[in-house]
Amino acid sequence: MQEKLNELKTRLAEWADLGRASAVLGWDQQTYMPPGGGAARAQQLALLRRLAHERFTSDALGRLLDDLSGDAASLPYDSDDASLIRITKRDYDKARKVPPKLVAEMATASAHAFQAWQKAKAASRFADFAPFLQRNLELRRELAQCLGYTDRIYDPLLDQFEPGMKTAQVEAIFANVRKEIVPLVHAIAKKANAVDDKFLHQAFAEKKQWDLGIEAVKLMGYEFERGRQDRAPHPFTTTFAVDDVRITTRFLPKFFNAAFFATMHEGGHALYNQGTRPELERTTIGGAASLGVHESQSRMWENMVGRSRAFWKYFMPHAKKVFPRQLQGVSAEKMYRAINRVQPSLIRVEADEVTYNLHIMLRFELENALLENRVAVNDLPQVWNAKMQEYLGVTPPDDAQGVLQDIHWSYGTFGYFPTYSLGNFFAAQLFDQIARDIPDLDARFERGDLRVLLDWLRANVHTHGRKFTLDELANKVTGESLQTRSFVAYLQSKFGEIYKV
Amino acid sequence: MQEKLNELKTRLAEWADLGRASAVLGWDQQTYMPPGGGAARAQQLALLRRLAHERFTSDALGRLLDDLSGDAASLPYDSDDASLIRITKRDYDKARKVPPKLVAEMATASAHAFQAWQKAKAASRFADFAPFLQRNLELRRELAQCLGYTDRIYDPLLDQFEPGMKTAQVEAIFANVRKEIVPLVHAIAKKANAVDDKFLHQAFAEKKQWDLGIEAVKLMGYEFERGRQDRAPHPFTTTFAVDDVRITTRFLPKFFNAAFFATMHEGGHALYNQGTRPELERTTIGGAASLGVHESQSRMWENMVGRSRAFWKYFMPHAKKVFPRQLQGVSAEKMYRAINRVQPSLIRVEADEVTYNLHIMLRFELENALLENRVAVNDLPQVWNAKMQEYLGVTPPDDAQGVLQDIHWSYGTFGYFPTYSLGNFFAAQLFDQIARDIPDLDARFERGDLRVLLDWLRANVHTHGRKFTLDELANKVTGESLQTRSFVAYLQSKFGEIYKV
Repeated sequence: MQEKLNELKTRLAEWADLGRASAVLGWDQQTYMPPGGGAARAQQLALLRRLAHERFTSDALGRLLDDLSGDAASLPYDSDDASLIRITKRDYDKARKVPPKLVAEMATASAHAFQAWQKAKAASRFADFAPFLQRNLELRRELAQCLGYTDRIYDPLLDQFEPGMKTAQVEAIFANVRKEIVPLVHAIAKKANAVDDKFLHQAFAEKKQWDLGIEAVKLMGYEFERGRQDRAPHPFTTTFAVDDVRITTRFLPKFFNAAFFATMHEGGHALYNQGTRPELERTTIGGAASLGVHESQSRMWENMVGRSRAFWKYFMPHAKKVFPRQLQGVSAEKMYRAINRVQPSLIRVEADEVTYNLHIMLRFELENALLENRVAVNDLPQVWNAKMQEYLGVTPPDDAQGVLQDIHWSYGTFGYFPTYSLGNFFAAQLFDQIARDIPDLDARFERGDLRVLLDWLRANVHTHGRKFTLDELANKVTGESLQTRSFVAYLQSKFGEIYKV
Repeated sequence: MQEKLNELKTRLAEWADLGRASAVLGWDQQTYMPPGGGAARAQQLALLRRLAHERFTSDALGRLLDDLSGDAASLPYDSDDASLIRITKRDYDKARKVPPKLVAEMATASAHAFQAWQKAKAASRFADFAPFLQRNLELRRELAQCLGYTDRIYDPLLDQFEPGMKTAQVEAIFANVRKEIVPLVHAIAKKANAVDDKFLHQAFAEKKQWDLGIEAVKLMGYEFERGRQDRAPHPFTTTFAVDDVRITTRFLPKFFNAAFFATMHEGGHALYNQGTRPELERTTIGGAASLGVHESQSRMWENMVGRSRAFWKYFMPHAKKVFPRQLQGVSAEKMYRAINRVQPSLIRVEADEVTYNLHIMLRFELENALLENRVAVNDLPQVWNAKMQEYLGVTPPDDAQGVLQDIHWSYGTFGYFPTYSLGNFFAAQLFDQIARDIPDLDARFERGDLRVLLDWLRANVHTHGRKFTLDELANKVTGESLQTRSFVAYLQSKFGEIYKV
């Protein structure tokens, strides 16, 4: 068995290295690549992804996994070896259903669509992007057919990012949360002026924004010997190795929050990846459990730490040192209230914690409608705008601030958006457990000790790599399945206090 | 035949894309990668290079080339198709001699050696780099054995970078040039104070140096829609596609020349690569004829343009606009003399045109001595320093400014250095032809019209891609083989006038 396990690991290492080489090419595409490089880069990425796919779907790997699956039954479910075999087999069975030709077509189409999206967004003209989105959609319908489903076409797409999760389950969770937060949004709307954040909307020099963000992620425990930050139009985190995990951010010259919280958010993702156990590197279980779990990490650091009263009690003097003029006379308490201002708005990545999930629900519904042919691509801007009005009471003035704002559909990643909300819910559930395990958490944050949180996450979440589904992890760490009770209570308590509702 | 040609091109496209993916990973390694990323990057690069090598050495490709080689005889020697078949066959026969295992070992060793070199150079401690250099050397001896040679172990290594060139030929050329330039160096040494370049050694803000360099390469015709510049400790040019050719530069805060001429130099390389005919892309004949020819392009732009009187008659007002204080009262003529100051110095990349080739001769001799076991790795710093004293009359105060200054040996690229000098000689030979073809060249440079030179190079050099050897190209374009007469005359005329010797 050991010999076969070693062969499995050797094969997976090559597959992983091809994936990481693709990640480098993808990172460059979004950070530094000149416009002329797009067409060739699409060819290069398509090749690398095809080679990785060929390796992962080879008959030889299949035979190896069949042999090993029998042996795995004698090992503890959560052991490294049993998990490696189980998860690889799960992924293998899915991957075998997808023809290499389709994989290559999706890669090429995505790369072209990304280029088109960048230009269309700059010109704020959805029509320029529409044919590329149409193509991405067609390929994802084909993908869903290949993967197979019994209930909803969205199921196999969602399953790519959140293994085991079903569309109907997400719909139920979303309906449940919406029922609780809509009254909260309404109650807060009546007190819209209770929080003043005008001072956050003034000129903040980019270089200084950069420096303050770096200070924050260093405090979180992000290591620059094993990572770096660059600029990207849509911030993301990418991993080339456990010791090379990179974050990106973007700047709004006249708004404090955008870069600062993007950096903390991506820093949260990166801490998860920098926390991979080296022995799990270059396998199928070295990464994150799922995108929902990944997002639980980024949102916890962004919101439960970065938007907490305790953190700002510590960090305010640091922020004032960098921006003495802009933050003159601003107390930690005033900062805390300002960064937590609730206001229905146009841009998802700038949304407050209360309204954020409404942006996700909208996208989740539109993705389902597009895939099930209930909405046509050309009608998307109108439908988007109407739903924005319905859910948030605002209407985008143009496509750039509306339907074109997100990168995801240019990459063809349908089924991805709901994981953002699942991450929010899971973050709150984890944070309840953390508060029970570390009673003096707030006091530690007030001293600038964020390491205590990272240590907990490393021991309880990061160490498991990709062994478990979100639900398995939730049960293991908190003793129950994913629930939204913690999240709703967190919102009601935090914003009830700020807005006195 | 057409069908087989198409199959050849399809196979080569995949090989080329793997090479270009490697280039992206290599570029990142030298520009942005955090220290932690090195080990994993070595694995990733080794894999990509192995896969490319496997594709290029497959039996199927060999059979295809055998079939096509017969057909090629009926086509004109310099046609695209005949050249594609001929050059691919030449490269294939060489590549078949190298076992994939050795290719992977060289890639891994190089990546580790590069990391070690960076640290050793920062600490100025050759001993930390020595074992990595030893390993690189051993692997290159093995490579030379695989490739085979009848005369010198250096021959097959040189041939990798300068096809068809022999070690003995380089020795003869070098001896010939040395005989002419040593008296010139001595004559100039007696008038060391005839040229004042003190104003070039003062503080030049990095951002402004950057801007001025960009202005110069734009004037040369380098297109930023199809490229970009980044910082790197050792400037280089790299190509990810004909429309994505990138340059790098480095800055010395108190010396004008370093960044400015590095940028023009790399710009010269990049213009060659941006000038590839798109139909030659992703084949074996899409690149440069050889490294010597490549260097002829960079050195021509750096020296025959960038260090010419005519260029500075045009460019001086632009430089003064960027550096009004530093260049106050400096005439174009004074600038011309200053940037052409001759002084034996420690660092190759900062050497003047007269002494530059002595740096190359030293490295060429040491490489031969190392490979032929006439010098031991551990003795290298002493031998280096002794030869520096002998050739240039200077002794490095530390390893960083001596034996550790160049990146090349960390990459294991033995046989590469002489191509720098061959490029210098060929640049002068080409420039003589250009002066015959474009009688008003100087007048055009004085008007800022550098495009006329680029157009000539595109039509006479770039268009041929990699079809010809240096010698074939020399004969085609100038009617004679590579000669050093033009170079010696160029030096004697230019520096004879400046120094009145």
